[in-house]
Amino acid sequence: VEVQALLAPTAYPSPKRSANGVDANRLGLLLAVLERRAGRTVATLDVYVSAVGGVRLTEPGTDLGVCLALASSLSGRPVDANLVACGEVGLGGELRQVANMGRRLGEAARLGFSTALVPASAPPDVPGLDLVRVESLADALTAAGLDATPSAESGGARPTRQPLASV
Amino acid sequence: VEVQALLAPTAYPSPKRSANGVDANRLGLLLAVLERRAGRTVATLDVYVSAVGGVRLTEPGTDLGVCLALASSLSGRPVDANLVACGEVGLGGELRQVANMGRRLGEAARLGFSTALVPASAPPDVPGLDLVRVESLADALTAAGLDATPSAESGGARPTRQPLASV
Amino acid sequence: VEVQALLAPTAYPSPKRSANGVDANRLGLLLAVLERRAGRTVATLDVYVSAVGGVRLTEPGTDLGVCLALASSLSGRPVDANLVACGEVGLGGELRQVANMGRRLGEAARLGFSTALVPASAPPDVPGLDLVRVESLADALTAAGLDATPSAESGGARPTRQPLASV
Amino acid sequence: VEVQALLAPTAYPSPKRSANGVDANRLGLLLAVLERRAGRTVATLDVYVSAVGGVRLTEPGTDLGVCLALASSLSGRPVDANLVACGEVGLGGELRQVANMGRRLGEAARLGFSTALVPASAPPDVPGLDLVRVESLADALTAAGLDATPSAESGGARPTRQPLASV
Amino acid sequence: VEVQALLAPTAYPSPKRSANGVDANRLGLLLAVLERRAGRTVATLDVYVSAVGGVRLTEPGTDLGVCLALASSLSGRPVDANLVACGEVGLGGELRQVANMGRRLGEAARLGFSTALVPASAPPDVPGLDLVRVESLADALTAAGLDATPSAESGGARPTRQPLASV
Amino acid sequence: VEVQALLAPTAYPSPKRSANGVDANRLGLLLAVLERRAGRTVATLDVYVSAVGGVRLTEPGTDLGVCLALASSLSGRPVDANLVACGEVGLGGELRQVANMGRRLGEAARLGFSTALVPASAPPDVPGLDLVRVESLADALTAAGLDATPSAESGGARPTRQPLASV
Repeated sequence: VEVQALLAPTAYPSPKRSANGVDANRLGLLLAVLERRAGRTVATLDVYVSAVGGVRLTEPGTDLGVCLALASSLSGRPVDANLVACGEVGLGGELRQVANMGRRLGEAARLGFSTALVPASAPPDVPGLDLVRVESLADALTAAGLDATPSAESGGARPTRQPLASV
Repeated sequence: VEVQALLAPTAYPSPKRSANGVDANRLGLLLAVLERRAGRTVATLDVYVSAVGGVRLTEPGTDLGVCLALASSLSGRPVDANLVACGEVGLGGELRQVANMGRRLGEAARLGFSTALVPASAPPDVPGLDLVRVESLADALTAAGLDATPSAESGGARPTRQPLASV
Repeated sequence: VEVQALLAPTAYPSPKRSANGVDANRLGLLLAVLERRAGRTVATLDVYVSAVGGVRLTEPGTDLGVCLALASSLSGRPVDANLVACGEVGLGGELRQVANMGRRLGEAARLGFSTALVPASAPPDVPGLDLVRVESLADALTAAGLDATPSAESGGARPTRQPLASV
Repeated sequence: VEVQALLAPTAYPSPKRSANGVDANRLGLLLAVLERRAGRTVATLDVYVSAVGGVRLTEPGTDLGVCLALASSLSGRPVDANLVACGEVGLGGELRQVANMGRRLGEAARLGFSTALVPASAPPDVPGLDLVRVESLADALTAAGLDATPSAESGGARPTRQPLASV
Repeated sequence: VEVQALLAPTAYPSPKRSANGVDANRLGLLLAVLERRAGRTVATLDVYVSAVGGVRLTEPGTDLGVCLALASSLSGRPVDANLVACGEVGLGGELRQVANMGRRLGEAARLGFSTALVPASAPPDVPGLDLVRVESLADALTAAGLDATPSAESGGARPTRQPLASV
Repeated sequence: VEVQALLAPTAYPSPKRSANGVDANRLGLLLAVLERRAGRTVATLDVYVSAVGGVRLTEPGTDLGVCLALASSLSGRPVDANLVACGEVGLGGELRQVANMGRRLGEAARLGFSTALVPASAPPDVPGLDLVRVESLADALTAAGLDATPSAESGGARPTRQPLASV
């Protein structure tokens, strides 16, 4: 599945939170972890998240993909189109593997992805997929090239067109 | 299906958002994309959207039709009655094709529509239907003759009577 | 079915909207059309609508009946007890016919109604029923004798006792 | 079934509306009718209504009973324990008969009630029950001895212990 | 079942009402009766009520037990551990018996309770159980030793550890 | 199951309460008990609680685990990874055993936990598990090394990475 995010300064008294295909409560939790664990300021931004194609995400394995989409929109930097993400994000900012991780990563390899961002505890080996193992959400953002400072060209929070792939 | 929209300056502390037959959360997302990706100012307007005939729209293929109806009401300009729209609108303002696009466009041709506004990635050919391929929502609005500036005759946001056809 | 409405100046910070047997979201849309398409000021009034007998109205064919009940209460003028209404109200204020219109009007004739207010596109002929064809909600209100100005005798918004029949 | 009401000056910014076993939306409508049709000021009072015994009232035949319980609490006057009420209250304040009225009143007679407050259009005759036929809610309140002015002894809105019987 | 309550001065703009295993609407009604019928000031307190063991109370026979738990927390005085309560509380503060009262009290006796606080209209005799018959909630509170004034030792609203037994 | 909590000073007008996999109403109750019974100030903090792995906790036996996770985050001190908690928390701060306690603790021993924090009334003996029996939530927090004062190193409320195990 693919996830998109749009963050921008709010024009409302209280910032908007719009979750399409993502649990609104879970989105709130992930935004809190992004802010407190990875130093991203999101509390004053409107946040729109959407799973492409009308899909409904119901389990925590897509946490990491949602966070990357949020950070990508925040920094104005796209993520490598060959990258796929998979992992649950804990309240401490730590990453956890999820059920059927091997099978999910195998499917990602079959779909043509070349790199997967995964928790350090992920299964040892997936043919045809370069596993980038990270301990925390902060490390994952760095590995994906999503620094906390916005790109020079973006001049502020600006969503990217490209969705973030997640399995 | 046909979709109508009515936008007008609000008389309330917070503008009204009324979605009939359209998911209210999805409408919020599309309004955000219209504002941030296509430069339409909608945040301070009352917005009413209604699917004609009590139909309930549940999948993203009608995104483009809803956006055209919104922009048509905003500019006070009607859309060509022979035009039908089909496509998902992403948070980046980009258009995506949806499931069964060929079959849906074939049905539109059978119903007598002559032109279809579709994503650039739509299926190659539909007999009897002139496919106008566009990359983004902004391009789609231009192709449908819905400039951002209101028509001289309308003097402001004014809904049009004619609904927007969508398949 | 029969529909009643009660409109009166509000005593609350935000006017009350109470829909009994009518979809609250749909009522909001019809009030917006009444205000913007037919020039009735309802935004500052408490609005109560009730389907008589605990019936629950679920399809758009009763739109016109609800609007007539609202306008009747607003003007303080009753509607002819032999009149029945049927039609969907669009966001442009235009009237549309609905499913099974012929059968519904036939039933109205059988129940003893002598006149029916219907969209211009309604089926051509119903024995025993005088069809008054109207293009728009504004025309329908005029045809039903519900001018925008309150009656001399009412001195303001005042509900009428008589419900509005709808099929 | 039996219905109780408790009305008292509010200590909150917005008055409380608590409906137990009665539809909250319906209660709001009946309070509006009481205020606008029968001249009872209830908008600034806390209102608690409860169906005795955990029963859930779901049809409009109990409207009249709920209104009598409200007016009884408002005036501080009890209603005759041998009185039972049955009827739908319209938005115009008029009373309407409901389904199975004859059978319901027969059951009331069997339970030992001697008088029934009913709409003027109620069935012609019920053995052992004195039918008091009234046209409107205002007439019903007068017939039940519930004048708009509070009783001398109550000195203000004060609920009565005795519930109001309804069939 | 056992019920606990915790009342304390609020630190919030509007006092908290938290009902666990008890219907929140019913709790609001019982608090209103406690305040208006038994002279307990609860409107400005945070109120937490919980049925022990994750049980969900769904019928009015536990009204009296909930009220005693509330009053016990309010006064800082525990209730005799051998006391069990059973009865519906009316809006007039009066107590009513409920369905299967005899069987429920028999079960209480079998569980080792020695005293039961019941409505005056309760069944005549239950072997092994001392029935304390009371007419009203105010009388019940007095019989349970829960005066309106807080105990000297508590110095204010203070919850007690001991839950209140109810059948 | 494992539970995590994140508490931090709020940046909002009213502090956030986000419960993932935990009943939001129950979380409110446990926060009230933590504040009033164990002297932890949580009312002005944002609170996020999450059950690891998308699990949904539905019974009161996980109360103690949730409270320990909250207190751990509040003090910035982790809890011994070999410790598991089990017990219902009452409104008086007292701990109660729950259904199938013996079987649940046996499973904890099988999973490799060496110590279990349990109510004083827990079953007498579980092979391979050191039972630490406590009367109240305050005692449980002390036994788990979670003093009310934040650790010197944390300098304020700071969530810990390690989740709290609960059976």
